[in-house]
Amino acid sequence: MDRLPTIEDVARAAQVSRQTVSNVLNTPAIVKPATRKRVEVAIRKLAYRPHASARRLRMRKSSTIAIRLDPMTNGISGALLDRFLHALTEQADDRGIRILLFTAADPAAEIEQIRKLRASGDVDAFVLTATFHGDPRTKWLVESDVPFVTFGRPWGADDMNHSTHLWVDVDGFAGMREATIHLIDRGSSRIGYVGWPSPSGTGDDRHRGWQTAVGERLALGDDDLTALNVSVEDRLEDARNAVVTLLEGDDRIDGLVCASDTLALGAMIAAASVGRSDLPIIGFDNSPVGQAIGLSSVDQTLDAVAGGALELLLGESGSDLVHRDAASGDARHRLITPHLVIRQPLRLLAPDAVSTPTATKNAVGNHRNGKETQ
Amino acid sequence: MDRLPTIEDVARAAQVSRQTVSNVLNTPAIVKPATRKRVEVAIRKLAYRPHASARRLRMRKSSTIAIRLDPMTNGISGALLDRFLHALTEQADDRGIRILLFTAADPAAEIEQIRKLRASGDVDAFVLTATFHGDPRTKWLVESDVPFVTFGRPWGADDMNHSTHLWVDVDGFAGMREATIHLIDRGSSRIGYVGWPSPSGTGDDRHRGWQTAVGERLALGDDDLTALNVSVEDRLEDARNAVVTLLEGDDRIDGLVCASDTLALGAMIAAASVGRSDLPIIGFDNSPVGQAIGLSSVDQTLDAVAGGALELLLGESGSDLVHRDAASGDARHRLITPHLVIRQPLRLLAPDAVSTPTATKNAVGNHRNGKETQ
Repeated sequence: MDRLPTIEDVARAAQVSRQTVSNVLNTPAIVKPATRKRVEVAIRKLAYRPHASARRLRMRKSSTIAIRLDPMTNGISGALLDRFLHALTEQADDRGIRILLFTAADPAAEIEQIRKLRASGDVDAFVLTATFHGDPRTKWLVESDVPFVTFGRPWGADDMNHSTHLWVDVDGFAGMREATIHLIDRGSSRIGYVGWPSPSGTGDDRHRGWQTAVGERLALGDDDLTALNVSVEDRLEDARNAVVTLLEGDDRIDGLVCASDTLALGAMIAAASVGRSDLPIIGFDNSPVGQAIGLSSVDQTLDAVAGGALELLLGESGSDLVHRDAASGDARHRLITPHLVIRQPLRLLAPDAVSTPTATKNAVGNHRNGKETQ
Repeated sequence: MDRLPTIEDVARAAQVSRQTVSNVLNTPAIVKPATRKRVEVAIRKLAYRPHASARRLRMRKSSTIAIRLDPMTNGISGALLDRFLHALTEQADDRGIRILLFTAADPAAEIEQIRKLRASGDVDAFVLTATFHGDPRTKWLVESDVPFVTFGRPWGADDMNHSTHLWVDVDGFAGMREATIHLIDRGSSRIGYVGWPSPSGTGDDRHRGWQTAVGERLALGDDDLTALNVSVEDRLEDARNAVVTLLEGDDRIDGLVCASDTLALGAMIAAASVGRSDLPIIGFDNSPVGQAIGLSSVDQTLDAVAGGALELLLGESGSDLVHRDAASGDARHRLITPHLVIRQPLRLLAPDAVSTPTATKNAVGNHRNGKETQ
């Protein structure tokens, strides 16, 4: 078989339950000798290695996992990886593992940093973020036999069944589909999509979620799907400008789903500025900014992502291992289903209202209309 | 003298410039022999140790600094320490230093973590955050002779001249004073303050900034200062409720300064809900949330804080050292002056407008007025 054998394969070959295999591995004394022998034969035959990378890690002593931390850029969606880092640090600490931070300007620099940290013996394994199709980092890590897990799919052919490495990702397709169906269930019948330019593994996945939902549930043709689809870089201003154009050109639009909270906030401002501050808008990431302004959003459940990454890397107790296999069907990856959070949004006044001289009725107007000092 | 001798003390004793002392330390060949001798005598006499802790660090080899990372809580002001961590990691990387993360539930647990990390030899020094008066962590670290620097003052008597340890902090007094004077200059004459309950080192410092500015520039009596001062915990809802009460009780208030962006956003929502969405409001921290909604805010200049922390801990080249002494007057701490950022805010519709049935004119109303599903 192309993938690594799982505990389920062993159970099937030995004609026992997964729990029995787990018992053989963890508490062999409680298993009948004949059964134990059958399981051990199956393990040898299939070359099953329980927690292969976990064992490798346990033999080392630094108990440290390293992850790249990027400079602060976008404070809205950019905080996602900070929240992941908090979850990872907390859950690693529960396992006696520490997190080491490093920086790198590009994939080549990251590989070099990993090589050095690995050579120093100070780091046992790595967590990589922001994977992309043809990622040179994961190729190098696999070839160099360095233990690692990625937050993000390999985005190659058949990631699910033949992944070349351990990964955790969030099912953006499912999340965006749920967000779109939520709006349809609440009465929206013409829902636009604000996303990133293709190709983008993550972006295209979320786009398909919207497309599938409106295709299944609404009578929209290909022309509609094209007209309702906006692609911009993940910047608030770009989203605002594009959504103003979209809404001015089509006043039947009665809902928007967006690939990020940055885009969603841009869309909220755009909607307010064309007198549509009541337009239902759903973002993605459930960012602190979104929470503060009452934006509905798809939550990536980063606790589950962090937990999944550590379980894949370090293994866990036998009973949990069984549960893991049952949940994902493959111990080499986890695809986490995100969670739609619905909120009552703050409603915005049209930005134009800000600069009208109505505010000059008192001294406040001087402030409001004053020159920017920053 | 109670404090460690500085390069200035040496310069004074040897009757030379600081630059000359720096030259003796770093490029002695360019200094005349007689001058060099005088400086060397002064160094010995005063027992001046250039970069004492830096030398200690350089003798070790882990090149690692550890810092506690807390669970995500408040996504608005709470992101401050994340932004500090980004700045610290980047600037540490420039110096070949790595950042190790750990967690701790309370000061005692943090001391225990530090003790273990120190014993393991994996960590050279520590950065502590959220210091408070009588902090047991800094007491223990000083007694244990562990190199560390705090982001936050000791908040004890005479921190500036006789600090028992290295610290960097942001001058909240100056920041809040600047914010208040900005509103006064733009025409506000009755400015409220939304802060945290006293005693709070950081909070009381910011409160004094407001109080000093309105005392100097506005004709407000003690009764006014009491009436205009709101104290709540750092929660959006609490701030909103308190500011609604404040504004309903005093319609002459024409500006608010707030001890955090969390409080400021609560104040913005409160102002909108009493029909005052034009009220000038300034926050503190320049958070991503504040940036997204156009909130004016006091920026803590975290790059400077991170750079200052590393310089204190690790020392720097001689010429920079001179500059450092000139700037702070004492190489044992840095008090960073924050920076007011003025923005054009998004204006909010009164939250009550959200639930009126006017939105039911189309299908959107079903969404808007629907039951929350989360």
